[in-house]
Amino acid sequence: QLPLSIMAGPCQMESRDHALEMAAALKEISDNLNIGIVYKSSFDKANRTSLSSARGIGLDKALPIFAEIKEKFGLPIVTDIHDAGQCVAVAEVVDILQIPAFLCRQTDLLIAAAETGAVINVKKGQFLAPWDMRNVVSKITDSGNANVMVTERGTSFGYNTLVTDMRGLPTMAQTGAPVIFDATHSVQQPGGQGATSGGQREFVSVLARAAVAVGVAGVFLETHQDPDNAPCDGPNMIPIQELEALLKQLQQFDAIAKA
Amino acid sequence: QLPLSIMAGPCQMESRDHALEMAAALKEISDNLNIGIVYKSSFDKANRTSLSSARGIGLDKALPIFAEIKEKFGLPIVTDIHDAGQCVAVAEVVDILQIPAFLCRQTDLLIAAAETGAVINVKKGQFLAPWDMRNVVSKITDSGNANVMVTERGTSFGYNTLVTDMRGLPTMAQTGAPVIFDATHSVQQPGGQGATSGGQREFVSVLARAAVAVGVAGVFLETHQDPDNAPCDGPNMIPIQELEALLKQLQQFDAIAKA
Amino acid sequence: QLPLSIMAGPCQMESRDHALEMAAALKEISDNLNIGIVYKSSFDKANRTSLSSARGIGLDKALPIFAEIKEKFGLPIVTDIHDAGQCVAVAEVVDILQIPAFLCRQTDLLIAAAETGAVINVKKGQFLAPWDMRNVVSKITDSGNANVMVTERGTSFGYNTLVTDMRGLPTMAQTGAPVIFDATHSVQQPGGQGATSGGQREFVSVLARAAVAVGVAGVFLETHQDPDNAPCDGPNMIPIQELEALLKQLQQFDAIAKA
Amino acid sequence: QLPLSIMAGPCQMESRDHALEMAAALKEISDNLNIGIVYKSSFDKANRTSLSSARGIGLDKALPIFAEIKEKFGLPIVTDIHDAGQCVAVAEVVDILQIPAFLCRQTDLLIAAAETGAVINVKKGQFLAPWDMRNVVSKITDSGNANVMVTERGTSFGYNTLVTDMRGLPTMAQTGAPVIFDATHSVQQPGGQGATSGGQREFVSVLARAAVAVGVAGVFLETHQDPDNAPCDGPNMIPIQELEALLKQLQQFDAIAKA
Repeated sequence: QLPLSIMAGPCQMESRDHALEMAAALKEISDNLNIGIVYKSSFDKANRTSLSSARGIGLDKALPIFAEIKEKFGLPIVTDIHDAGQCVAVAEVVDILQIPAFLCRQTDLLIAAAETGAVINVKKGQFLAPWDMRNVVSKITDSGNANVMVTERGTSFGYNTLVTDMRGLPTMAQTGAPVIFDATHSVQQPGGQGATSGGQREFVSVLARAAVAVGVAGVFLETHQDPDNAPCDGPNMIPIQELEALLKQLQQFDAIAKA
Repeated sequence: QLPLSIMAGPCQMESRDHALEMAAALKEISDNLNIGIVYKSSFDKANRTSLSSARGIGLDKALPIFAEIKEKFGLPIVTDIHDAGQCVAVAEVVDILQIPAFLCRQTDLLIAAAETGAVINVKKGQFLAPWDMRNVVSKITDSGNANVMVTERGTSFGYNTLVTDMRGLPTMAQTGAPVIFDATHSVQQPGGQGATSGGQREFVSVLARAAVAVGVAGVFLETHQDPDNAPCDGPNMIPIQELEALLKQLQQFDAIAKA
Repeated sequence: QLPLSIMAGPCQMESRDHALEMAAALKEISDNLNIGIVYKSSFDKANRTSLSSARGIGLDKALPIFAEIKEKFGLPIVTDIHDAGQCVAVAEVVDILQIPAFLCRQTDLLIAAAETGAVINVKKGQFLAPWDMRNVVSKITDSGNANVMVTERGTSFGYNTLVTDMRGLPTMAQTGAPVIFDATHSVQQPGGQGATSGGQREFVSVLARAAVAVGVAGVFLETHQDPDNAPCDGPNMIPIQELEALLKQLQQFDAIAKA
Repeated sequence: QLPLSIMAGPCQMESRDHALEMAAALKEISDNLNIGIVYKSSFDKANRTSLSSARGIGLDKALPIFAEIKEKFGLPIVTDIHDAGQCVAVAEVVDILQIPAFLCRQTDLLIAAAETGAVINVKKGQFLAPWDMRNVVSKITDSGNANVMVTERGTSFGYNTLVTDMRGLPTMAQTGAPVIFDATHSVQQPGGQGATSGGQREFVSVLARAAVAVGVAGVFLETHQDPDNAPCDGPNMIPIQELEALLKQLQQFDAIAKA
């Protein structure tokens, strides 16, 4: 079992300067803790609650910046795709193509992603049971790509609430795919009466600790230097200033869990 | 308040002959009961549980058949779309573009559908609260299309189970959009250990009666001459031989609900 | 199948005068609509959210008033019991002993109630599936009492929310026991941040109509001349002034459902 | 923050010999690991799924055996009570009176237990949100007893399933009461089609590790030398032969969580 690794970065790519600044900070944490970090950012937020929410910088502007981060800092890159037509272009730069939770059963998208040969990270839909991911993983492996990971990001629990069932982590591991725990979206409070989703930042570390003690390959964590003013996921991103201390504690739990 | 109308048809378009046969049977029921029926069928099942499940006849073959049904029987047509690129072509033939539940927050798809000017029927995601449909409806109306309907098709309730909250029907009506109750997918048992979704046909009429007594604009019902051998949704389609009796009873409930 | 009957009355017995006044109003509605009404009121609210909530008039004071209502108006009586020791005394006056939802699996209480020979109405726990009521009913029938009814009053759905699964009504009917739908507590919003439970009075008629269209033996409805100032369940009782119109509509749905 | 302590023992008291044997084994583990263990066993299973399930040895026979365990092994004792009338007698021998989850809102029971002055451990109802325990705790402290603990044992999640929301642990800690995680009943599969509840023993250690990493005062774990042949909770008790290794790992997680 490999030690814990991390997917982290700001919810969406805001600008080249911001992306490079965040990547530099993450690279430093990676070196300090000797922990693998994959840089995560979205070029397009394709399913915002409301039309008026910021959608991001777009594919064409984002790809060169991702390439620059890879080259300058040596961090692998993960980003999410929303359309079969995006897969080939994104896979030329990005290491891990991420399938959004709402889209985890869209066959054409899964096949197009798989056929690039990139690593595929599929987020489990909020409407799926952990054992349902077996069929999702098969859609990718049966398309000739064995490099698939699965991510837990919470399950629908009543209205406007997600719950994380920690039993789902070992259940998903039975697919053979490495299991990632997304501590950012698991504390999201989707929808509600307003025009954006809420979140509970105070529970990010609570759930991350629990998941690592259960045993996972990695943790996904969105982070920002000023979450309260970020264009998306502000309520559930953690300040990058607090990230190193959290990851250090997670490494300690991971060492016991994998002893 | 208009009297109850119906969206009905086989889950997927199997062949021209089958489609015409089903449409003829539905037209006869429509005439017998003096009830509006929109013909429903899918040209592609884009999110089947497993890769090996039948996906359907495809867009190019389906559109001329839809056109033939419209012309021959005078039934309006509804079908579901999965990709922004399909909207224009489908809207040239089909009267109502349906947004699948998993895709109800995909902004690009909603806008592309809206911009065709066709009527849009959005299924509420299994992961959404009824009041969350307000933002979904706004994405369409803010794109300049006021002809939007919303459909209840069950909400995630634990694993592999959906529940219908009848309070959601009047709540969704507050968006101003006509509310449809999908009695077929509300009794679906999504996922589970196998490679297809299950269903509970015996509860289709139970939930349809309840929804009509609460008050809805229409009921969505998949039907087939031999559901147990249909290529999809067999466990939750009702035999077309039983449809007329059910619709007749629903009309009686509807008359009281709207008195 | 017998026509729909009703259990109705104020949440708790407030005083002899109030009880007689409510009973008189219910008797009049019963006569006007030719509908069976069982008078319901609690002598003790044994599981209030907070210690400081009003608990009611008590057993000793309530029993003579129940007796007076029976004699004066000819209405049968239902009340809830919380302790095996109460059963014998209550059954001497009251026609139907009701087992509260939280207590529906307390074996000693079920046996003690059963052994009185009174009719037993068991509310389904918010934590039970409809099919779980089979074992609950058996505890009573195996104690020698075949006169048992079961009542749906909502199922836990996330936090502080109940949902009514209308499929549960026919499922519970498979026990052989008459099925009652409690339209008052099904719209309760249990707990929450405050010291009393909330409710959604506007949905009482919505869910009652749905349940009657599905088909039930009876509807349970708490009512009060001034719900907003009632000592309990105010947010989900309906004004008695509106009761007759609602019951009349329910009778119309019932006639179709049982045709 | 005190180090982790444990409540453990067989689901129900089977006989004097069995109880002493289990207590001896637990005392040895307590000494080996220098971990506090409270001996847990039930004298009566008052809410079994079915009438025919074994209910246990009874109060009168159990109390002298509890007294013998305390004297011989120095282990404090916890047992559950179901009736206000049992509290005084039980509190003369037992250190911690446990309120079953279904009964956590029964005011008379909570007050009677509180008034004994014993420590009270209230299990959170499967139908309650974590923050709802504030009112439950107040019922005890307002009765003059500040020695109250609260226990998480899973929340209703669809039918016949419980889920543990790890966010509930810090939320319940805000009541000021020590928080216990019940790893045995959290993996219960309540009800279902049969006459006993099922369970998932393989997830006991998964959830216990998660809860300890989040941070709890104690873990509650039922254990037996031969769970598959135990008279109750067999599917979710862990073999006592495996207990020491599990507790040792939990101590390691606890040390990091409380560092």
